[in-house]
Amino acid sequence: MLAPTTVPMPGLPERVRIYEVGPRDGLQNEAAVVPVAVKAELVTRLVGAGLRTVEVTSFVRPDLVPQLADAEELWAGLARSPGVRYPVLVPNVRGLDRALAAGVEEIAVFGSATESFAQRNLGRSVEESLTMFAPVVATAREHGVPVRAYLSMCFGDPWEGEVPPERVADVAARLMALGCTELSLGDTIGVATAGHVQALLDALAEVGLGVERLAVHFHDTYGQALANTLAALQRGITTVDAAAGGLGGCPFARSASGNLATEDLVWFLHGLGIDTGVDLPALVATSTWLAAHLGRPSPSRAVRALAHQPSPS
Amino acid sequence: MLAPTTVPMPGLPERVRIYEVGPRDGLQNEAAVVPVAVKAELVTRLVGAGLRTVEVTSFVRPDLVPQLADAEELWAGLARSPGVRYPVLVPNVRGLDRALAAGVEEIAVFGSATESFAQRNLGRSVEESLTMFAPVVATAREHGVPVRAYLSMCFGDPWEGEVPPERVADVAARLMALGCTELSLGDTIGVATAGHVQALLDALAEVGLGVERLAVHFHDTYGQALANTLAALQRGITTVDAAAGGLGGCPFARSASGNLATEDLVWFLHGLGIDTGVDLPALVATSTWLAAHLGRPSPSRAVRALAHQPSPS
Repeated sequence: MLAPTTVPMPGLPERVRIYEVGPRDGLQNEAAVVPVAVKAELVTRLVGAGLRTVEVTSFVRPDLVPQLADAEELWAGLARSPGVRYPVLVPNVRGLDRALAAGVEEIAVFGSATESFAQRNLGRSVEESLTMFAPVVATAREHGVPVRAYLSMCFGDPWEGEVPPERVADVAARLMALGCTELSLGDTIGVATAGHVQALLDALAEVGLGVERLAVHFHDTYGQALANTLAALQRGITTVDAAAGGLGGCPFARSASGNLATEDLVWFLHGLGIDTGVDLPALVATSTWLAAHLGRPSPSRAVRALAHQPSPS
Repeated sequence: MLAPTTVPMPGLPERVRIYEVGPRDGLQNEAAVVPVAVKAELVTRLVGAGLRTVEVTSFVRPDLVPQLADAEELWAGLARSPGVRYPVLVPNVRGLDRALAAGVEEIAVFGSATESFAQRNLGRSVEESLTMFAPVVATAREHGVPVRAYLSMCFGDPWEGEVPPERVADVAARLMALGCTELSLGDTIGVATAGHVQALLDALAEVGLGVERLAVHFHDTYGQALANTLAALQRGITTVDAAAGGLGGCPFARSASGNLATEDLVWFLHGLGIDTGVDLPALVATSTWLAAHLGRPSPSRAVRALAHQPSPS
């Protein structure tokens, strides 16, 4: 079968916006630098498969993340389609300046719900990171540029263990108060389970952050990403992050830590009769093509199942 | 983190019975025959990890399924624990006779919801298979032996495509009318999605088959098994089939078709505060041990994530 039987569940949204993070979140974790032409083709293929929001790259320091050192070159060579959103990540004001100079129209910043990860990933406290983001968000908004905020470690932290929903809600509210337009709740180490997802969304609603400004960002480390997505949809979430082919972690590495695969998500949503705009066979073909470039199979179960089935035509 | 944060969801059961199918459903698909001593140790380790129902083997014709030709030897050598259920599969009256002679106390039969799979797997029509099962179920019950019925292809069939819930409900009702005590709804090719699961359970309720006599049996071919499990729990299901380590299909084969991994299920259920009685580290150690015997890594994401984390002690 090349598509699931469509059977809706009452109370779920009619349409879900998939925020595709593969080119940035996925490829930044590759050991070898992917050629810029391959990256550009990946973005173009993803848009061709129907994805309407594709995070392209990060304007981060080239010496810190050599995988993304080609941000300007990639952006300049990208044939962008009307109606498609091409956000980029910026770590700070220098990154924002580069992104604005390149003509970027939408950005994202990357914060942490925990002190341990803020110190390790951002080199500063949660408080100091908010101070760092303030001028980034303000300047972006002055330029009419929407700002997504990623909040990582929303469900658990490898150094701190459990992360209380109330702490996440506190940091989330302060990030949004800076002027961010959307908040993506990151389960960076994949430890979230379904009840925890709903409890966090409830805690966020209590501080005034309704689902219309929220997205969920699950990793499939423990196989929970789709069950968590169902729990989130049941609370009204309509924006879900995913990476084509499950990019973002090697399934054979010490701890599998890939993003939710866009193909697994699309199969799930289409089975529920939820519109995504995505052409699943075209997306599978894209991930299969990229897997050949990366030299290893996609960890996505839907890709593995669909890549070898005969085409209906 | 070695365990998820526990956050219940309202309306879910307090306890779930995991019906472990790895030794039978998993190992029957192995290319090489697994030594009987390894099988016995597997069952013993699974029980030691807290599983309270473990399907041991199938009393099938040795020339047809050489992987399970050691059924009598395995059963005779098994050190059984009090309070644990050790069902076996029997294909027909000859298999039942062998099982009863061996002293088996609980059996399962294996039917199909579709004509195509009945013909290919059982060599007869759905009607003829019910006729074949009738004396098996009757004789077993006369001996005080409970009978589980597996019903395969409940959500989709590779030859027929979509399988209507009403057809499944019809075959299910007739199987149960024979005297079966439990029915396991099999998504043999892994195509079920969450709304479809609830629609099938609703169709079964309409023909008088309530969730208290039903189990769900999902395959993770498209990554949907846990989301489907959540949908089933929300309808009141309390028995869930799974295979330790995701046995039952090779993740690198043409189409990944493994069972839901027991470890992924346990992580999910414990995160929801649902009691399973299972010691997850002991189960992971069992799957890691078996994977070494089989010469390939477990496809379970939880096993991969947990097997390499340091023990807390």
